[in-house]
Amino acid sequence: MSSVETTDTAPARRRGGRSARVALRSAPLADDVKPIRAGMLGGTYRPLDEMGIARINQAAMDSLEQIGLGQPTPSCITYCTAAGARLSEEGRLLFPRAMVEDTIAKAGRNLVLHGQDPKHDMEIGGKRVYYGTAGAATQVIDPIAREYRNATVQDLYDAARIVDRMDNIHFFQRPLTPTDVQDLQTLDINTLYGPIAGTTKHVGCSFTLGTNMKMVFELLHHVAGSEKKWRERPFVSNSNCHVVPPMKFGEDASAVLEECVHGGMPVLLLSAGQAGATAPAALAGAVVQAVAEVLGGLCYVNAIQAGAPAIFGTWPFVSDLRTGAMSGGSGEQALLSAACAQMAQYYDLPGGAAAGMADSKIPDIQAGWEKGITNVMAGLSGLNLVYESAGMHGSLLGFCLDSLVLDNDILGECLRCVRGIEVNEDSVSLDVMRSVCMEGPGHYLGHNSTLELMQREYAYPEIGNRMSPKEWVENGKPDIVEKAVQVKQGILDSHFPRHIPEDLDSRLRQSYPIALTREQMGFAA
Amino acid sequence: MSSVETTDTAPARRRGGRSARVALRSAPLADDVKPIRAGMLGGTYRPLDEMGIARINQAAMDSLEQIGLGQPTPSCITYCTAAGARLSEEGRLLFPRAMVEDTIAKAGRNLVLHGQDPKHDMEIGGKRVYYGTAGAATQVIDPIAREYRNATVQDLYDAARIVDRMDNIHFFQRPLTPTDVQDLQTLDINTLYGPIAGTTKHVGCSFTLGTNMKMVFELLHHVAGSEKKWRERPFVSNSNCHVVPPMKFGEDASAVLEECVHGGMPVLLLSAGQAGATAPAALAGAVVQAVAEVLGGLCYVNAIQAGAPAIFGTWPFVSDLRTGAMSGGSGEQALLSAACAQMAQYYDLPGGAAAGMADSKIPDIQAGWEKGITNVMAGLSGLNLVYESAGMHGSLLGFCLDSLVLDNDILGECLRCVRGIEVNEDSVSLDVMRSVCMEGPGHYLGHNSTLELMQREYAYPEIGNRMSPKEWVENGKPDIVEKAVQVKQGILDSHFPRHIPEDLDSRLRQSYPIALTREQMGFAA
Repeated sequence: MSSVETTDTAPARRRGGRSARVALRSAPLADDVKPIRAGMLGGTYRPLDEMGIARINQAAMDSLEQIGLGQPTPSCITYCTAAGARLSEEGRLLFPRAMVEDTIAKAGRNLVLHGQDPKHDMEIGGKRVYYGTAGAATQVIDPIAREYRNATVQDLYDAARIVDRMDNIHFFQRPLTPTDVQDLQTLDINTLYGPIAGTTKHVGCSFTLGTNMKMVFELLHHVAGSEKKWRERPFVSNSNCHVVPPMKFGEDASAVLEECVHGGMPVLLLSAGQAGATAPAALAGAVVQAVAEVLGGLCYVNAIQAGAPAIFGTWPFVSDLRTGAMSGGSGEQALLSAACAQMAQYYDLPGGAAAGMADSKIPDIQAGWEKGITNVMAGLSGLNLVYESAGMHGSLLGFCLDSLVLDNDILGECLRCVRGIEVNEDSVSLDVMRSVCMEGPGHYLGHNSTLELMQREYAYPEIGNRMSPKEWVENGKPDIVEKAVQVKQGILDSHFPRHIPEDLDSRLRQSYPIALTREQMGFAA
Repeated sequence: MSSVETTDTAPARRRGGRSARVALRSAPLADDVKPIRAGMLGGTYRPLDEMGIARINQAAMDSLEQIGLGQPTPSCITYCTAAGARLSEEGRLLFPRAMVEDTIAKAGRNLVLHGQDPKHDMEIGGKRVYYGTAGAATQVIDPIAREYRNATVQDLYDAARIVDRMDNIHFFQRPLTPTDVQDLQTLDINTLYGPIAGTTKHVGCSFTLGTNMKMVFELLHHVAGSEKKWRERPFVSNSNCHVVPPMKFGEDASAVLEECVHGGMPVLLLSAGQAGATAPAALAGAVVQAVAEVLGGLCYVNAIQAGAPAIFGTWPFVSDLRTGAMSGGSGEQALLSAACAQMAQYYDLPGGAAAGMADSKIPDIQAGWEKGITNVMAGLSGLNLVYESAGMHGSLLGFCLDSLVLDNDILGECLRCVRGIEVNEDSVSLDVMRSVCMEGPGHYLGHNSTLELMQREYAYPEIGNRMSPKEWVENGKPDIVEKAVQVKQGILDSHFPRHIPEDLDSRLRQSYPIALTREQMGFAA
């Protein structure tokens, strides 16, 4: 978090002393020596073994060939049958194994998801890990008053501005659906504009209708400077629920998908079945269906344009089978998302799934363990894009701006775990041990290596409290949620990014139904 | 948690409906079909690769041979030099590699840690995972008043009683040090008696002086029925800090260790160096030193008695290097404990390390993520004994009885993750998909397989709240910490285990300085 530094900056009394160390550590670190960074390599956690992966692949291939995807649009049928799919008598599109395998072979991989600022570009592939937001919550949470209220375009812009300042939230996919806009075109324009005005990180967006995409692309070309510049560095991707599980195409999403492929916008092929409701209750089966549905979408995308940028978005959710309600914070959910990371790696496709979706309604201990467990397992599995990883509560029904600040610390700890343990001649520390135990003071606190590692190897929370109980009492027993609210408010009061300058904003307002006001964006009245 | 069942037991309106499912799921499950159990297999998470493990082993062997362990007692020197160790001119015991390797080969493995009730026996070895408590907190936390107070013998007994009812806390190692006893003998008797009276699960205890062990064993023989019965099923192990890091023996602990080996009590060989203070700051180096210190202890134990039961207790802790204070909830800590699990597996020794040690002072969102991340990584790594996994706050300085109830849910989720994803012909669900998509209703909620999997595959939190935001509001916005306090109080008001019957308790009081009163144990005045 670039704006919030440790407050203890008292002058050092002696080199290596506590205050000197605190001061040193509170200075910003150069990116290349930071202990945690975007795109670190996961993969040390592998819930599936090789045989399990092979069986899931086999079942997914069989289901695409034998069950196929229902309710394809005429345009989808045209594209896919021309590429080798077959329309069954029941109107289902069946994808022969050879076609699917050929599609995987030629599909776009090692995708770059651009930020408006190139320093936020993400290289999606392999086992590189990026955390970000996502969702469609229609309610926003006040964690102090413990109240839910309707989400607005202002909330969406504010969420983007906060994420812009959170080091461990690497991209901003629209986490909420504003309820204060009326028609679908206005909704699509405003779910796009707030995010791209609020952050220079990569933005993911959903769009409702294919017919809205002409206006969406026009606006993006204006912001990029030209269509050519947009196509060189598309900084928005489309979160596209191309399927309605189980195993059916979505009509409106299909139309949006085709427009995005033509317009150069990367597509997140999102299969969001819910195990036990719209996907098999067996976890392996839920993965099979998600893999099949996304591979079907990949065939569709590649039938439109070979190699078009697409993300393998297997997002199986979980039901609490007693009630049928979704449970986003469960162990079953953590396993599903991690297994999906392995399937993306198996196909060598850029992959994304969901974690961090607390069932708890507010940022309490339950939210902490649900977010911690699911996010760290996603990261350790090497999931490329961890969606929903910050801000979500109530099994995706509520979004909390303050939780972005809290979750930034959770994700920092997850990233430290993803980084792992380096074992080399230096780090095994035999010489250091010899010197400390046989010649030295009998402890390591003052050793040269310790000060250096403090910077390079150890990650520290931004608002997480590490005081002793005694210090904590002396400091008035600070509450971490209240601290997060303060940090959030500090950002919202001061951080108005200006990568979209005022004159461009004014011009855009003349052509597009932008609901976010100039005042909300901090421009003088 | 055997005492607390889901409260919705309204009669079912129709088979498979929500209320029927809730009622079915709220009935106790037979142990062999429970989705989560003690001793499940971890090992899917491996932070170290084979080369890393080999390098750490090599460095540990080198350090034992070249640096050795300082301050051995005369008795320790006698035992160890007779078994092949060499005393250096500086008075350090050096352990040649061949001796250490021979010791590993002949050491006790696949240890059973017994409960007073055999249903709680734990088979320690391989990648089987058990979670339990541990610690030496001198303060107890009131999470509602947000206050710390001194710990008492009553607290210790109460903690044992709560753990006795928590399904996901599998053993009870003393988590706190009572401050209301005066001399060390009374302390040792009372840190033993409260736990063994409060739970029939396996108990771990620390003891201060070797000279107290005669009385300790006498008491244990009385409780077991005889010395023979004690030796057949020792239900208490000794948590023994045989080293004072870096690389020195502890004098008093050595005396206790020798008595335990002679008395048939399993010994947890506990190396608790703190990376950056009493162990190298580099994480790999901290693991090296812990491995060396525990292997040195293993040589000592096996020099006393070959094959004596001992636990490979590599517990490297972490410093916040800015301040030197311990950080138990950090990502660095999670990595260290998981790496130690791999080292125990490499030597095929029963292993234990620490996780769940929140830095947060109270059960808030920070405690949740710190406990969730560290505990799940320990479990996924296949750590046999996860110590400190419940109840701890303030980097081990505070213990919270109420958090045992909360942490039981955290550990339940961790165990579900440890269980993993079964992939087989049934679970890939191709036939279920075919039936639902091509013949059936288009969803899985009513499918036969779903109801069965609800019981066998899905784990549910005991107090974790999965209501929708709407239901949560209608139910008065329940607070999870308040709920935990209620559940705790219900147990403390009603659960007085009677495996130590009143007449035996009365006889023991005549011979031993038992500070816990009869009234505190629920006996009539």
